[in-house]
Formats: sequence, C-alpha cells, structure tokens
Amino acid sequence: MNFEDQLKDFSRQVLFNADFGKLSPFKNIVISGMGGSGIAGSIFSELYDKAPVQVVSDYKLPAYADKDTLFVGISYSGNTEETISATKEAIKRNCQIRLITSGGELSELGQETVLVPKGYQPRAALGYLIKPFLNSFITSDKPVYEKISAILSEMETDNSLEKGTAAKIFGKNSIPYVLGYPPFRWVAYRWKTQFNENSKLLAFSSYFPELDHNDAIPFKHTYGKDTFSFIVFGGSTGQIEKRVRYTSEITSTDFITIKPGGESTLERMFYFIHAGDYISYHLGKMRKIDPEDVSVLTELKERLKS
Amino acid sequence: MNFEDQLKDFSRQVLFNADFGKLSPFKNIVISGMGGSGIAGSIFSELYDKAPVQVVSDYKLPAYADKDTLFVGISYSGNTEETISATKEAIKRNCQIRLITSGGELSELGQETVLVPKGYQPRAALGYLIKPFLNSFITSDKPVYEKISAILSEMETDNSLEKGTAAKIFGKNSIPYVLGYPPFRWVAYRWKTQFNENSKLLAFSSYFPELDHNDAIPFKHTYGKDTFSFIVFGGSTGQIEKRVRYTSEITSTDFITIKPGGESTLERMFYFIHAGDYISYHLGKMRKIDPEDVSVLTELKERLKS
Repeated sequence: MNFEDQLKDFSRQVLFNADFGKLSPFKNIVISGMGGSGIAGSIFSELYDKAPVQVVSDYKLPAYADKDTLFVGISYSGNTEETISATKEAIKRNCQIRLITSGGELSELGQETVLVPKGYQPRAALGYLIKPFLNSFITSDKPVYEKISAILSEMETDNSLEKGTAAKIFGKNSIPYVLGYPPFRWVAYRWKTQFNENSKLLAFSSYFPELDHNDAIPFKHTYGKDTFSFIVFGGSTGQIEKRVRYTSEITSTDFITIKPGGESTLERMFYFIHAGDYISYHLGKMRKIDPEDVSVLTELKERLKS
Repeated sequence: MNFEDQLKDFSRQVLFNADFGKLSPFKNIVISGMGGSGIAGSIFSELYDKAPVQVVSDYKLPAYADKDTLFVGISYSGNTEETISATKEAIKRNCQIRLITSGGELSELGQETVLVPKGYQPRAALGYLIKPFLNSFITSDKPVYEKISAILSEMETDNSLEKGTAAKIFGKNSIPYVLGYPPFRWVAYRWKTQFNENSKLLAFSSYFPELDHNDAIPFKHTYGKDTFSFIVFGGSTGQIEKRVRYTSEITSTDFITIKPGGESTLERMFYFIHAGDYISYHLGKMRKIDPEDVSVLTELKERLKS
C-alpha cells in the first residue's frame, strides 16, 4: 500500500474489533508507547477516567506499577527500545500485561498480545492501535463505529476541505500551532506530530483553558506572529467556547477553525484526527516532499543501536 | 516588592518549611492547578512515582477521584475558576484535601490549607507552591535545601550568564524552543510559560526521547528554522545524552546548551528553573516590555466572569 492508501484505510481500521479479552481487576493503568504508537494511549487517556492512566514515554516504569497495574505496551513495529525496556520491567513487576504490536521483539515476549496488520507506517495505523482500548473500555457497539467509518469514508473520498486548509498554511509558509481543548488535547498533539512527519514542518500544540494562563500574552505581544498559523478545533461549548472567542478578540489573533464532523465525542475525535491526517498530507505534497519518508528517524535509531 | 525582587526571593522560598501535615493512606493523587500554579504539581509529578499522580488543568475531576484520593488544589491567588470548581467537586467526593494558596475563595472553603505569603506574581512564588510537595514526599532535610538556596543565591547575585543566553535569543529575534528530558520535562514547560509571560514571546517545549519520534524530522527539513532558538538542558547521560548529540548532528541543528548547576536531581531542577526565570526576564527587558505585566490574562479573566 502506498501512503495515501494507508491514510484511506482509517475508515476501515475503526471497524477493527479486537479487544484485551478478559481482564482481572486493576487499580491503575500504565501505558508505554512512543511517537505514533504512544499517541493511541494518550488519546485514550482523555476518554477514560475510571482509574488513573499514566502514559510513559520513557525507558522506565513508575515505582507504583505492580500486580494491581494493567500495563499496556504499544509499539507498531514491536522494536521500539523504550517500550521493550518498559515491558520487560512490567513483566518483572508482575503487572497484568497486554501488548499491541504488528510483530518484532515485543511479539516474542510470550505475553497476551493484540496483533495488528503489518505494512503500515505506525502513524497510519492509529485505528488499529486505539481500537483495543475503545472496544475494551469505552464501547464495542458496532453501529457506533459503522457511523464513524461512514464519516471518515466521506473525507477519504473528498478531502478538498482539508486541502484548502493546507493551502492556507502553505500560502504564508507558516508553522502550525494547533489549539485543542478537552477531550481533544491529545488529538491536537497528534496534529503536531503529523505536521512533523507528513509535512516535515515544525509544529506545536496546546489547549484551552491552559493556554489562557500563558500563551494568550504572546498572542498579543510576540514578535514573529506572522510565522504561525493558529488552528482551533470548533464545536466547544460553555466556558471553553467563550475562552476561544475572547482570546481571539483580546489578542487580535485570527484562528483557522476546524468545524467538527459528527455529534458525539467519539465521532468528533475520529473526524478531527483524520482531518489532521489529510491537512498534513496535502501540506507535505504542496511542499514537494515525500509525506511518507521518515529517514531521519531511521538514521537516529540505527546510530543509537551501535 | 518589584518583580526583580520577587525573582530574587526564590533562594529564600526553597527554605519554606511547610508541609501537608499528617496524611491518611491514599491510592492516588489528583492535583488541580492552572498556569504558574499548576506547574508546581506537574514538576512534582515527575519526581514522585510511589502512587499515580494526575495533574488536572480543567474544571472537572476524574471519575475515579474518591475517598482514597489525595486531592491537592493549588491556586496562588485562590481565585482561579478551574481550581475552585475542581476543589468543590473533590469536597463532594470525600477526597482527602489539601490546598495551597495565598488567600482568595480557595482559603475560605474550610479545608486544610498551606497558606503562602501574598504579594507575588504566581510565577514568582513557585518555591512556595512546590515546597509543601517536596517536604511531604521527597525530602524535608534542611541541609539539602540550604545547599540549593546557596546555588540559587549565587545566580541572583550574578546572572550575567543568563543575560548572555537571553542576548543570543534576542540577537536573532527568535522563538525559544526548549528541549528537556526526564525528570526535567516540566521544567522545560515552565521555561515555555516564563518566555510567554516574562518575555511576551511565543515559546514551546518538548523533551527527549519523545521528540526523536517526531520533531527530529522537521529539525532537518522544516522551513523557518532560523525563526527558532533550540535550547537543551545539559547534564544528561546514557541513551538520552546520545540522543541529544545524534539529533543535533543528523539534523544539523545547533543547540544552546544550558549547563546544569549542582549535582543532585533537586539541585539541578531548581537551578534549571531559576535559569529560565532570569533568561526570560532579561529577554523581556531587552525587548523593552514589562516582564511583570500580564494585563492580557487579567482582561480575559474579567470578561469570563461577566
């Protein structure tokens, strides 16, 4: 599959019906994952609050992780050094373990594993990586995901809206700054990473209400403001909606607003994720670079092994 | 106290000996705090891993928060709407409650409260806000903090090094991008917010090893790279030290390295925090803006009330 076909596969991935199987009771969840794999855990952590969830982007495991901990190790390749290191420690600590991977060293550790299909860039396999969490803890209701799949499929057929947003960013050679709000703070971070990888651009994310305690000042006073495109997710309500509006007005900052697709949190979450996929992809194409190429990361990994 | 005197007070603040008093057993910690107040909880969360710690930058409390939760509400002013809202919910849920504030509505909720001195900008009171956590959970050993106080005091007497770093950033009218590593990821975020508030500049933070899974690509390929100053904390070891070096080499990116003061994690943590205070302060002065002024945030708060 070429990279555009991989992107187009997302509407199919949300129908992936794997889950973690029967789980013993646990007191907390620790998720280990980096980059495009870890983001699945981070996005899930915003939807689930029946137990503390910590996403570890590091080699180590927190001291509290023990037999009462559900440990989920995610690495699409199965060969991410930080996640392998954390998983081995989780085994020693007798955590209840679930792994999500397409193969590699992680699949050879003899632990209960959700195997996902090979052949994707990790960031184009987010549907496979996040669905085991959603099916196990949020909902496994088929019609819910069929509706989401239809929404995503529409974007895959016609993404001229997303292409238009990419053109706005590209038109002024700007750096995207994506402003989310709960429960889409990590979706905003996903956009940042997609701009990094697909568009080969520096990009940043923050979220309301936190940014009103610091970023709002430079929104008014900074130099270099023209360097940035400020992108906000639409569809907020209450105090957050007011904050978005007042922040724009008081600081005289134009926001590019991404209108939400769908109504429910899950529908909007997947819609926003996929909009970011396509905007970053089109932006990469406009820059005449290869959206799929991640040779810098590969070179880094190789040197770290030696 | 003028703002420079407030900054200079940090070496005295680390001697603040308040703690949370006797605590009943708890299974997890939830900290509510925004901006310059919340950062105390976030920095602490990287030093402590005997129980899950979640810092909530939002109006709501996670569903799991109950009688087995230690809830800490931090608001320097005591009038932060998000923190007041979360604290009231924590009271309803029968959490074990501790508050840190200088007064305001938070001090009138009839809960066990660490009262800190009035008269500071919240971001210049970080010593007061973080010490109750450190004294209660990390160490309350007086000589430890006396040594840190001496290190900070030296910087307060002579911060020409920090002024020099500010001049580098100002010299090319650049946007700071601060790259931390565990356990200084939130110190990097503190720098971002200090640049936002004291220098009135957009600024960003990320950290190793996570950034090697996304940012490293634009470090090589982005447009507008000259717009940024890349700042890394020195003193890393092992794989992290290699990652810093290889990332710089492979992507041809110059990092401004901040040499650590002190040896222990706590010494370096406070040293890095204070270096960020002074660099952002001097940068504000060079820009001929008032480092203390946060009128944009005040205006936002006023409009949100109406």
